[in-house]
Amino acid sequence: MKTRFIYNCPFSLERGGCLPSLEITYHCYGKLNESKDNCIWVCHALTANSDVADWWPNTVIENGFLDPDRYFVVCANIIGSCYGTTGPLSINPSTGEPWFNEFPKLTIRDLVKAHSLLADHLGIDKIFSLIGSSVGGFQALEWVAIEPERFNSLVLIATSAKASPWTIAIDETQRMAILADGTYGEKNRTAGSKGLATARAIGLLTYRGGSGYNLTQQDIPGLDESVPDSHRACTYQQYQGEKLVNRFDAYSYMTILDTFDTHDIGRGRGGVENVLNSIKIPVLVIGITTDIIFTPEEMKYISQRIPKSVYREIKSEFGHDGFLVEHKILNQIIKDFFNNIED
Amino acid sequence: MKTRFIYNCPFSLERGGCLPSLEITYHCYGKLNESKDNCIWVCHALTANSDVADWWPNTVIENGFLDPDRYFVVCANIIGSCYGTTGPLSINPSTGEPWFNEFPKLTIRDLVKAHSLLADHLGIDKIFSLIGSSVGGFQALEWVAIEPERFNSLVLIATSAKASPWTIAIDETQRMAILADGTYGEKNRTAGSKGLATARAIGLLTYRGGSGYNLTQQDIPGLDESVPDSHRACTYQQYQGEKLVNRFDAYSYMTILDTFDTHDIGRGRGGVENVLNSIKIPVLVIGITTDIIFTPEEMKYISQRIPKSVYREIKSEFGHDGFLVEHKILNQIIKDFFNNIED
Repeated sequence: MKTRFIYNCPFSLERGGCLPSLEITYHCYGKLNESKDNCIWVCHALTANSDVADWWPNTVIENGFLDPDRYFVVCANIIGSCYGTTGPLSINPSTGEPWFNEFPKLTIRDLVKAHSLLADHLGIDKIFSLIGSSVGGFQALEWVAIEPERFNSLVLIATSAKASPWTIAIDETQRMAILADGTYGEKNRTAGSKGLATARAIGLLTYRGGSGYNLTQQDIPGLDESVPDSHRACTYQQYQGEKLVNRFDAYSYMTILDTFDTHDIGRGRGGVENVLNSIKIPVLVIGITTDIIFTPEEMKYISQRIPKSVYREIKSEFGHDGFLVEHKILNQIIKDFFNNIED
Repeated sequence: MKTRFIYNCPFSLERGGCLPSLEITYHCYGKLNESKDNCIWVCHALTANSDVADWWPNTVIENGFLDPDRYFVVCANIIGSCYGTTGPLSINPSTGEPWFNEFPKLTIRDLVKAHSLLADHLGIDKIFSLIGSSVGGFQALEWVAIEPERFNSLVLIATSAKASPWTIAIDETQRMAILADGTYGEKNRTAGSKGLATARAIGLLTYRGGSGYNLTQQDIPGLDESVPDSHRACTYQQYQGEKLVNRFDAYSYMTILDTFDTHDIGRGRGGVENVLNSIKIPVLVIGITTDIIFTPEEMKYISQRIPKSVYREIKSEFGHDGFLVEHKILNQIIKDFFNNIED
């Protein structure tokens, strides 16, 4: 069920300034039980949205780790995005026009603060488990850091405690692609579309990595391989770029890229290790063998610093995107973790 | 010593058409000895040029593997590039203007055929060793495949026998970046500069990889990390983009990207394995532990299929760029290989 929560107060932002009000679009699956202890909250990644059942196939199903017969699953679209939560395409009340590239700069902490307001609104004081993969994991870690009492457990998949120089360089390259498109800055929704398509293609390279491309994008035998445009990997990149252009906009994308780079759970809190050490709840940390964005080493680093943490690794050829593809093993690992907590 | 060789005949191209004539700029270091058996030929990578001593530091030195007191080292700029060899900025005699984006499409085989003409011109029938890293290795493998009698040995560093879907996807993304810049197509040398800068930044991501960025681009402590533009990794990407724009042009870059994707030593020759199996000379294959473009696995694959091949691995945090950085271990490994051949 898709719902919109309106927060009609100014929402102050970490980098200064405020949003005059907030709209947050969220999905719920299943029902909150009487003891209000069956909520699983999912934090979504970069360009996803609140409809988990759509973007995370085979998880919101009977016997999935997000089984709606058992759990009350909530996922909210992040601010700065374009799926019904306040973002650059929302109307700036002071001009009566969309914000476009005048939307204020956000941090991961702002995103989490907004969702905390929603949790209050829904009356969910205690969340059985908070789950985040990729940038969703940024939010999940941040949320546990600021409201440790709200959560019984945490699941982190292919994510990090602080944006690394590597991930920031990936984001900067995507920003360069959008800014190289001379139409970016025009006051319309399709401004910077070619740049956005390129940015997405850059992202895809890092999501899939060499093993993913070499597994899925081999040329069909018999093709004239001396003509570069005919390669399957070329049309794949173009297709992925266009697909994002059809569902997103360059202004929202720039906003969330900038936000990504602000991630550092240790900022102003004595550093990353200090915060990880202070997490008291059971935490499941999952790495993917071929993930070149958030490597298994990085995931082990996180797990080793959280006292009640277990580390599990998924063997996959799909790189970072493995978290979207490997639902069978994810269902198994996460359900085992939940069963251990509930015992 | 930098020299230009003029080949005043039509030069036919694999994909059809021809260049009306060729100019090839090349560098020589050291002297060809009387028995004419001390030539080492270096094939350069994507945006490099014939001046090996400049782009491959600490190799063309006393006791380096390209020691000019011992060897006659030759490197020629590839066609399609912009360092004095015929390319998109050369004058198209039929219009009296530079070719720009009407320069014919090339293949790796065309590049090699041009350099074979230069070797004939220089009277070098026997080359002691042919060395290629990255796209230089594409050319080296191709050259050995078509003229096996010309070479005594071959050194392949971080390269491949066929462009993979992964590398083609990287190239396509770079093409998308250039095409997203609306100035590309204008008839001047600076057309598509912002797109070119972005393409280079994409390339850099893959050259350095996560380990390279996290080693060299950590933020300086005390920086305000909530402001994305202030990250060191951001200015690094911009700087690297601008640096290429100052020495290259988008038309030449597009030409060599397209050429890269045509690489397949097995095309029309019964496949890659067949060609690798047929190489009779001693071959040294070098992989780099953190190379995400041409992985150690890919290098081992090549080595295992060449009968007289040895495989060596360089432990480096610099990814694919390790071949430019790790001169100490390279000098050692390659000199050992040469000594074994000469014994």
